[in-house]
Amino acid sequence: MHAPGKRTYIHEVATRDGFQNEAAFVDTDAKIALVDALSACGYAKIEVTSFTSPNAIPALRDAEAVMHGIARAPGVVYTALVPNVRGAERALSCGVDEVNLVMSTSESHNRANLRMTREQSFAQLRDVIGALRGSGVAINVSLSTAMGCPMEGDVPAETVLAWMQRFAALGVDGFTLCDTTGMAFPSQVRDLCERARARFGTLQLTLHFHDTRAMALANTLAALDAGIDRFDASLGGLGGCPYAPGATGNACTEELVHMLALDGYDTGVDLAAVLAAAATLPALVGHDVPSRLLKAGRRSDLHPPPPADAAATPAQRAFR
Amino acid sequence: MHAPGKRTYIHEVATRDGFQNEAAFVDTDAKIALVDALSACGYAKIEVTSFTSPNAIPALRDAEAVMHGIARAPGVVYTALVPNVRGAERALSCGVDEVNLVMSTSESHNRANLRMTREQSFAQLRDVIGALRGSGVAINVSLSTAMGCPMEGDVPAETVLAWMQRFAALGVDGFTLCDTTGMAFPSQVRDLCERARARFGTLQLTLHFHDTRAMALANTLAALDAGIDRFDASLGGLGGCPYAPGATGNACTEELVHMLALDGYDTGVDLAAVLAAAATLPALVGHDVPSRLLKAGRRSDLHPPPPADAAATPAQRAFR
Repeated sequence: MHAPGKRTYIHEVATRDGFQNEAAFVDTDAKIALVDALSACGYAKIEVTSFTSPNAIPALRDAEAVMHGIARAPGVVYTALVPNVRGAERALSCGVDEVNLVMSTSESHNRANLRMTREQSFAQLRDVIGALRGSGVAINVSLSTAMGCPMEGDVPAETVLAWMQRFAALGVDGFTLCDTTGMAFPSQVRDLCERARARFGTLQLTLHFHDTRAMALANTLAALDAGIDRFDASLGGLGGCPYAPGATGNACTEELVHMLALDGYDTGVDLAAVLAAAATLPALVGHDVPSRLLKAGRRSDLHPPPPADAAATPAQRAFR
Repeated sequence: MHAPGKRTYIHEVATRDGFQNEAAFVDTDAKIALVDALSACGYAKIEVTSFTSPNAIPALRDAEAVMHGIARAPGVVYTALVPNVRGAERALSCGVDEVNLVMSTSESHNRANLRMTREQSFAQLRDVIGALRGSGVAINVSLSTAMGCPMEGDVPAETVLAWMQRFAALGVDGFTLCDTTGMAFPSQVRDLCERARARFGTLQLTLHFHDTRAMALANTLAALDAGIDRFDASLGGLGGCPYAPGATGNACTEELVHMLALDGYDTGVDLAAVLAAAATLPALVGHDVPSRLLKAGRRSDLHPPPPADAAATPAQRAFR
């Protein structure tokens, strides 16, 4: 159902999902400046960094420095990825508002991505949840390959819901259903979201799309239809997954916010500020970014007509 | 409403909208070979070329040779753009099944694109329609900037419907509503399509999206919701509009067909054959094409897991 005026919540993940996927190290000061700029944009949540081993993800080896360096804006939830108890301790020492735990719903992707079986991942994350008990820090679980695995293919919705059930029983606060390699399609998204809301509607539910096969915004519409109101997105469309060769990036924040605003949703996000932040990315990462909106401009950015007799405007070209 | 099994009709426009936008001339034999390949893909319609002045569109100066050279497949409608009576005579001499007339619904874009006022365009197209009377050739009218003008901004739905009414009164067979520079958004598309169907539902209605701001497939979902079952798309995502600087191309055929097939629609189109044809485009046009599906592969194209101890797969990378 299209619901103009409905509040929707946007989570920015570029500084985590995006930078982790970059070959070049982005300077700590630049990361802090970017998060500070994003803090003024109206996001509900910013995934700042990842408290993983510096050997595993050297791009995010400055997690503490970034978390300590940023200026926190009231109303924004600052979250970080945590893979294990050691990571949780580091995140707690930095005063994160939330930790984000990740595992895949498909065995092959979990082994490839995390070098563990799903049961091993679950046991490790259960320990993290135990270690966080009483800390007051919120716990979100991101379930990867929830709409398809690049190695196994279909992942049944029942499999996803069963993993949600096991984590819900441990008292987590929310779930992010991740379309890791852009395999989701609209009718599937609608069905999975409806079932997830029916069973776990009291928890915070977030959808995390990739634009690998150009369906990120179509899938967003389907999720909205199913009542979902929270979405991860990545500034500039940064991000991706190495297990899907040729894949392009995460859903692009500015493209998502642009569409939602045109459809009348209240995202709370200042699109002009987001576009200004996105425009700084190519210099930070050393290459062009996938965002098409950054190139084309907003729908409302009009262009002057060409001069009446411009030689570059032959008659009858009939662009349509 | 999602309607699995519903027949939807795909029109290929790469050889017209796409090639017209290319700097390099694609050899006539290559065009013929491409159309012949496309004829085996299951399209409802192929817009083969444009009978415009060779000075206006040198890229399509071989319109007659292409139309005479192709092998027509039964069941496929072969259409061509026609700007005036001279063009209509040329098209008739080649035995096209349909002619496609084009004007913009916004004054500024019509002047920029066609060097005429809208009234001048309408008068010219009325003459074309008169010249075609009794020929048995179908007449479609493509209305550009129907969901926004890059120079004027909003184009009221009433304006679009009023132009449709004027052409409907002349007895045309169908309309294509064109989102020329990717300004359409889902709720607008749904509304316009519902109103167009309510008033002109007995005529063939086609939607023509561009992916300029990443909404081509989201807008397709909205049009499907409103009961539309015909879509233009361009192989590889070729095409674009010079009046939207930085704009990317038309809706990409393989991405559209891929999504529709996953959602259970019966497009009649062989996606593998379309992808094979799309793969030939970079060599034809001399550059990479926008299609993301061509890079990422279909959802069903699975990848082998990495070796268990691959050095390139550090633990805890936590792609999601």
